[in-house]
Amino acid sequence: MHIIHFESPEQRRLLGCPNEDGTARVLAGDLYAGSLAETGETSPIQRLLAPIEPCNIFCIGLNYRAHAAETGVAIPEYPVVFMKPTTTVVGPGDPIRLPLACEHGPEVDYEAELAVVIGHKARDVSAEQALDYVLGYSCACDVSARRWQKHGGGGQWIRGKSFDSFCPLGPTLVTADEITDPQELALSCRVNGQTLQQGSTADMIFSVAELIAFLSRDTTLLPGTLLLTGTPPGVGFARKPPVFLTDGDRVEVEIGSIGVLSNPVAGVRF
Amino acid sequence: MHIIHFESPEQRRLLGCPNEDGTARVLAGDLYAGSLAETGETSPIQRLLAPIEPCNIFCIGLNYRAHAAETGVAIPEYPVVFMKPTTTVVGPGDPIRLPLACEHGPEVDYEAELAVVIGHKARDVSAEQALDYVLGYSCACDVSARRWQKHGGGGQWIRGKSFDSFCPLGPTLVTADEITDPQELALSCRVNGQTLQQGSTADMIFSVAELIAFLSRDTTLLPGTLLLTGTPPGVGFARKPPVFLTDGDRVEVEIGSIGVLSNPVAGVRF
Repeated sequence: MHIIHFESPEQRRLLGCPNEDGTARVLAGDLYAGSLAETGETSPIQRLLAPIEPCNIFCIGLNYRAHAAETGVAIPEYPVVFMKPTTTVVGPGDPIRLPLACEHGPEVDYEAELAVVIGHKARDVSAEQALDYVLGYSCACDVSARRWQKHGGGGQWIRGKSFDSFCPLGPTLVTADEITDPQELALSCRVNGQTLQQGSTADMIFSVAELIAFLSRDTTLLPGTLLLTGTPPGVGFARKPPVFLTDGDRVEVEIGSIGVLSNPVAGVRF
Repeated sequence: MHIIHFESPEQRRLLGCPNEDGTARVLAGDLYAGSLAETGETSPIQRLLAPIEPCNIFCIGLNYRAHAAETGVAIPEYPVVFMKPTTTVVGPGDPIRLPLACEHGPEVDYEAELAVVIGHKARDVSAEQALDYVLGYSCACDVSARRWQKHGGGGQWIRGKSFDSFCPLGPTLVTADEITDPQELALSCRVNGQTLQQGSTADMIFSVAELIAFLSRDTTLLPGTLLLTGTPPGVGFARKPPVFLTDGDRVEVEIGSIGVLSNPVAGVRF
């Protein structure tokens, strides 16, 4: 099932299944209790929202072999785990706002990522069982202010990853039953129509299942936990010359049948 | 006002003001809307809970001059920001559970910290205005698995800071009007009755007000955001010989009028 969260013309916030004509079949029930069902109602889609409101967001750094290579670091022994606050999430079409804290010069970068939504409470699950705990998949952009990430917090990345709008998410949540193997998805990132990242989840160092097993060690992953699984090569700061986002740009993240997550960039112009 | 969150003998979860006889005057209303008021009801306290359920938890590393010195790192130019997932929070008396992932040997450490709860949505607030956004203060322990913190995640600290029960919080939330100056609070940590950390918030490198201003740059701090403000010297890994927590220990964090946050340690015995 392809699930969207959207605002109707009457400003109702609804879950639905998108039709090709810009309407959606409205769903009712609990996203995490497996009780979602069509109501029979159809509604125009006024505005797409992020498909979920996560309770916690875990992110993985350097999880594609070729991206680790382009940043010049060794393949990590364990997954590199960081977090974003839930306030970073915005929906499809919402602007990525360049922070005033970055006004000294360009530094804001894109990272196309496969997003995984936990559906059932997971703790100490094995990699073999891990995918049973996944509700579905979406596209995310791990927007990153590189100076703040590297020099702004004593080597900890959070300040550079936590500005408002730094986690676009969507456009759909594709339920796990429709993704036979999350390790064979093509993902790409375009800026102003130009493809700057292109890769396959087959290149991940730690698979989605291994990441869930690792993160759930002695740790409860609640339904609604969002996991960003790392980015393929081609990020802006590693390009020669570097490419950073500026006012008026458009960032598109595309992953297989999930669709295209498209966000304009607003704010400081360099 | 001293606010507690507790379970009554009938398993109701209530907010209240504690009396000296083990009962509480029950409060009703919204903690963040300023509408809390006594209902006239008094209830026995069956079990204390963490005073709030945070929406996001920001933590600051190396924020006391003497703690930065004991860990051998330079005074940071900006606050060192990391996060904990909300699933780490436990209440007074709840066990700090040593993770099975730490079964290879002792590594779990205590860090007594002043906890700050944001009461009003804050974004781009100045240090001069920042304390107006604080609902109140509590005690927290930033429990840390040192091996996972240092070597388990490519230099990012989150894996070692995010195990279940790694954020004891309480026992009370003291509203901001009762803390004239958050930079003149004595705080200490005892393990099995022995004082291992002792300091004053006057020793903070970045004040509570400066931290809120820094974190709110281009970033929304929602009501219920929890901020752990760093720890004074005396942490276990920096002691000679090192002191790490083991099954049967008891950790007590005490800060001025907020009270004593006391938690047993359970799990692996070394």
